[in-house]
Amino acid sequence: MQEIDQERLRQQLDFILEIDKEKNVFRQTHLSGGGRAENDAEHAWHMAVMMALLSEYADADFDLARGMLMCLIHDIVEIDAGDTYAYDEQGKKTQNAREEKAADRIFGLLPEDQDKKFRALFEEFDAGVTPEARFARVMDNLQPVLLNDANGGADWLRHGVKRHQIEKRQQKTKQGSLSLYGLIETIIDRNVAAGHIAPDTEDESLKQE
Amino acid sequence: MQEIDQERLRQQLDFILEIDKEKNVFRQTHLSGGGRAENDAEHAWHMAVMMALLSEYADADFDLARGMLMCLIHDIVEIDAGDTYAYDEQGKKTQNAREEKAADRIFGLLPEDQDKKFRALFEEFDAGVTPEARFARVMDNLQPVLLNDANGGADWLRHGVKRHQIEKRQQKTKQGSLSLYGLIETIIDRNVAAGHIAPDTEDESLKQE
Repeated sequence: MQEIDQERLRQQLDFILEIDKEKNVFRQTHLSGGGRAENDAEHAWHMAVMMALLSEYADADFDLARGMLMCLIHDIVEIDAGDTYAYDEQGKKTQNAREEKAADRIFGLLPEDQDKKFRALFEEFDAGVTPEARFARVMDNLQPVLLNDANGGADWLRHGVKRHQIEKRQQKTKQGSLSLYGLIETIIDRNVAAGHIAPDTEDESLKQE
Repeated sequence: MQEIDQERLRQQLDFILEIDKEKNVFRQTHLSGGGRAENDAEHAWHMAVMMALLSEYADADFDLARGMLMCLIHDIVEIDAGDTYAYDEQGKKTQNAREEKAADRIFGLLPEDQDKKFRALFEEFDAGVTPEARFARVMDNLQPVLLNDANGGADWLRHGVKRHQIEKRQQKTKQGSLSLYGLIETIIDRNVAAGHIAPDTEDESLKQE
């Protein structure tokens, strides 16, 4: 057996056990088939598999290992900060502060080099500028749209979500993949037509242009 | 918007929705804190994060993107084949046939090139020979041991698991990481001493050597 740094390993194991709690952070999105609410760990898993599968649609080359890891860890802060629903305007005002504090505590469990690395990856996702972050955000936006669409728009209906709210969020998608943005537009159109997403008033529609 | 092959995208989306079902395949392991049973998607997510975090302990260099993707997809076949508990000797006899049939159907939803690629990655994990597969199997073995240990060995106690059963399974761990094998041995020792894992009879112990 190799000589290993036991203190370093203990810090890594503490972090690994800590993030087990992400499996109990529930989202507003429900599993396909109209099942229970999805949790953050499941969402992150789904995003990472999707990233490997859909990489051909990314508008810029990216490093798959970095991108997948970004998907896998982007919601870890929600263990402390909770899930902030995409269309919860009040919650979003305090989201950054809550998530920064959570990142300090949770990534801070790791050995210093890995704390820095994971923290930087999380901040990179949040900033959404690099090719990895842009495509990871496409996955973050597309994954719940697919589940919602498969559920007859039940979550949009429940929250009375309007078209411009979804469109606003999907501006990030446009920056990562024009073709997957096109796919999401098609899905939105279909769900507006079916009455699952509320159409905009003329004012709301104009503000988007 | 780029011109895309709509039939190819439809196949990819069908697969993406199909694997949503993995979130409802429950394992024998329970979440830390004595919570509910863990599902396959959560387990796969946890393994992939662990792989990125613990890669320094792998006994051979490996490609992180391939290794993480292997972790993420290794249990997809259980959507059809169900979870086979590590110490269910009857279930393990039919496990291969059940899983091959499931792989045909589920990976078969993908476009041909991706079907081949994902199927090959799954078979590679199963064979456990390449550095990626060896280290992915270390993660597959270590992850439930950490949860079980955190839960006072509740799952081992419930199933009356004996030391040689765990040791047998951990032979795969030895091939991927001697240092993490050492960690697992320490955890097993502690749980045998605490009465959470049943000690072997002299016969069982000898058979292991």
